[in-house]
Amino acid sequence: MKINGTPYRSVWVNEKDGWSVHIFDQTRLPFSLDILRLTTQQDVAHAISTMQVRGAPLIGAVAAYGLALALRQDAGDTAMEQNAAMLAATRPTAINLRWAIERMLKALRPVAPQDRVAAAYAEAGRICDEDAAQNEAIGRHGLELIRALAKSRPAGTQINLLTHCNAGWIATVDWGTALAPIYMAHDEGLNVHVWVDETRPRNQGAALTAWELGSHGVPHTVIADNAGGHLMQHGLVDLVIVGTDRVTRTGDVANKIGTYLKALAAQDNNVPFWVALPSTTIDWTVANGVTEIPIEERAASEITHVAGRDANGALTRVQITPDRSPAANPAFDVTPARLVTGLITERGCCPATEAGLHTLFPEQ
Amino acid sequence: MKINGTPYRSVWVNEKDGWSVHIFDQTRLPFSLDILRLTTQQDVAHAISTMQVRGAPLIGAVAAYGLALALRQDAGDTAMEQNAAMLAATRPTAINLRWAIERMLKALRPVAPQDRVAAAYAEAGRICDEDAAQNEAIGRHGLELIRALAKSRPAGTQINLLTHCNAGWIATVDWGTALAPIYMAHDEGLNVHVWVDETRPRNQGAALTAWELGSHGVPHTVIADNAGGHLMQHGLVDLVIVGTDRVTRTGDVANKIGTYLKALAAQDNNVPFWVALPSTTIDWTVANGVTEIPIEERAASEITHVAGRDANGALTRVQITPDRSPAANPAFDVTPARLVTGLITERGCCPATEAGLHTLFPEQ
Repeated sequence: MKINGTPYRSVWVNEKDGWSVHIFDQTRLPFSLDILRLTTQQDVAHAISTMQVRGAPLIGAVAAYGLALALRQDAGDTAMEQNAAMLAATRPTAINLRWAIERMLKALRPVAPQDRVAAAYAEAGRICDEDAAQNEAIGRHGLELIRALAKSRPAGTQINLLTHCNAGWIATVDWGTALAPIYMAHDEGLNVHVWVDETRPRNQGAALTAWELGSHGVPHTVIADNAGGHLMQHGLVDLVIVGTDRVTRTGDVANKIGTYLKALAAQDNNVPFWVALPSTTIDWTVANGVTEIPIEERAASEITHVAGRDANGALTRVQITPDRSPAANPAFDVTPARLVTGLITERGCCPATEAGLHTLFPEQ
Repeated sequence: MKINGTPYRSVWVNEKDGWSVHIFDQTRLPFSLDILRLTTQQDVAHAISTMQVRGAPLIGAVAAYGLALALRQDAGDTAMEQNAAMLAATRPTAINLRWAIERMLKALRPVAPQDRVAAAYAEAGRICDEDAAQNEAIGRHGLELIRALAKSRPAGTQINLLTHCNAGWIATVDWGTALAPIYMAHDEGLNVHVWVDETRPRNQGAALTAWELGSHGVPHTVIADNAGGHLMQHGLVDLVIVGTDRVTRTGDVANKIGTYLKALAAQDNNVPFWVALPSTTIDWTVANGVTEIPIEERAASEITHVAGRDANGALTRVQITPDRSPAANPAFDVTPARLVTGLITERGCCPATEAGLHTLFPEQ
């Protein structure tokens, strides 16, 4: 996607040295567009755990390059397996991270150590290219849903979408998942407007989704996470589209904390609730999302403090709670499949059920 | 209630001059306990609209004193009616404000202008005393619910309550509504713990409820507004208690934006959802809360900015959204009566239905 007219991906290899890895520091957006250079797997692990990179698909792609960087130090079997395990442990909920590391190992184990670095960069590059292509396909399939909505209304009627967290192009290698259909709808002239949940505690909606949509010119309005139900009660939301960090084979959806509440409100108000995902997000080994998916508990300081830009233009953090009040910070929740209207994958849309997923992925 | 051992109410008349009105500046809590002195109705209107005082019952009590201050300037019929209308318009959603102003006018209209100031202070004082007594009664009735929960578990088991926004003693003249039963349960030795929704955009939970509970020694944990559904899914919430700004005669509940989402989650997980209110909060003229209760739209800056304490100890505001992203800020939502387990009033508990309310208030 483009920033001020220049095309970017969310992760890329340095063109001059051919091996170091670049990302945007997403903890500095929307106020500062800083490009980081990662040179070790420790850099990569730090970038993932501190959420300089985040978004399930992007985490997987960056971790793949992390393994390539690790192999530059030691391409032996023992080190490769240990470093892979270390990278896979940086975030517990997203399945793409584990998927990407396992794909890398599967490709690299048969390769002689002296050839592994080159093979790792090649495989990580393929993961990136495939992610971008999958997301573009997700966008095309999701676009059909928005087109159908637009056709059901008088020409030019505004279509109001709601999204939670950031499942845009900077959560992936390119295009995004939940936002890909919205970009395509906007680009073909449909009158779309997006309600952007701010997504406490880290405000990925207020900071990242609003920045992405604004940079692309898509009309949008930031709202408190509390507001979506009220908007749906009053007919102001036509469609909810979110991304996901892990989907069970039965269609349960793990996504940013608060997604479940929006799904409940959508059901209570007959608003379609769709989830966009590349198939790498599906965990075919899990049947019950609520009981089986590990939910990352992040630092209490993300609740007690809020980061933003002060009146002097400096990025700063302010404390919002009393000094002695503890805080809890579960980072994800699970939306049961019964609340999900359907899944948008690179192969098309399907019901959020085991049967629905098998029609699209019969090989599983 | 006590702050560091000293008993306070949330509004009181200056003991020395006998007429100026004191409140806490709730926009400075929890970091600074500033007592303001209000000397004109303009001071009172400013304090209400900027939320230096907030909470439906407290707004009504402070507005009553606002009319007394106005009468000190001009006690004539025309001025009294105009000033009453001005005060009643400072916030649109809470019914207690309108109720308090109407009660004051009813008491003052038959009084000769030269006697109105004294009569106004006397009536405002009665409103305050009755609010405190009603809330104490609400506390006793709500306490029975918590006692029943405690009895149904092994002795000493922690009872986990969840509340949204602040319906504590600083939202009322004393005791609070939703928090009154919790204070009483804690004081009699029940093992209660409160999940405190931070309550974006103004963070009344993170700033005020956490401060109140901490000052009183009640165990509590601040959470993002997004987290409550996840906690309920995992059995970590035994009871939700919230306050309200207006209840229809049919039991629909207007309260801080986001309350509806918690009510949906409570229903989905079979968690009891109770609403605590003095009967002055009931609007007997309204049948359908969603379509008939006006919802205040507050400034977008409450969404785009967050106030807190910076690393130097200064109260400051940080921007969290991109410069050009618009924001919307509906301040309340309506929870349909079907999602409310019951209402806790000063006369006891009842179902959130017209019949339920009439059993407690047969005179209506």
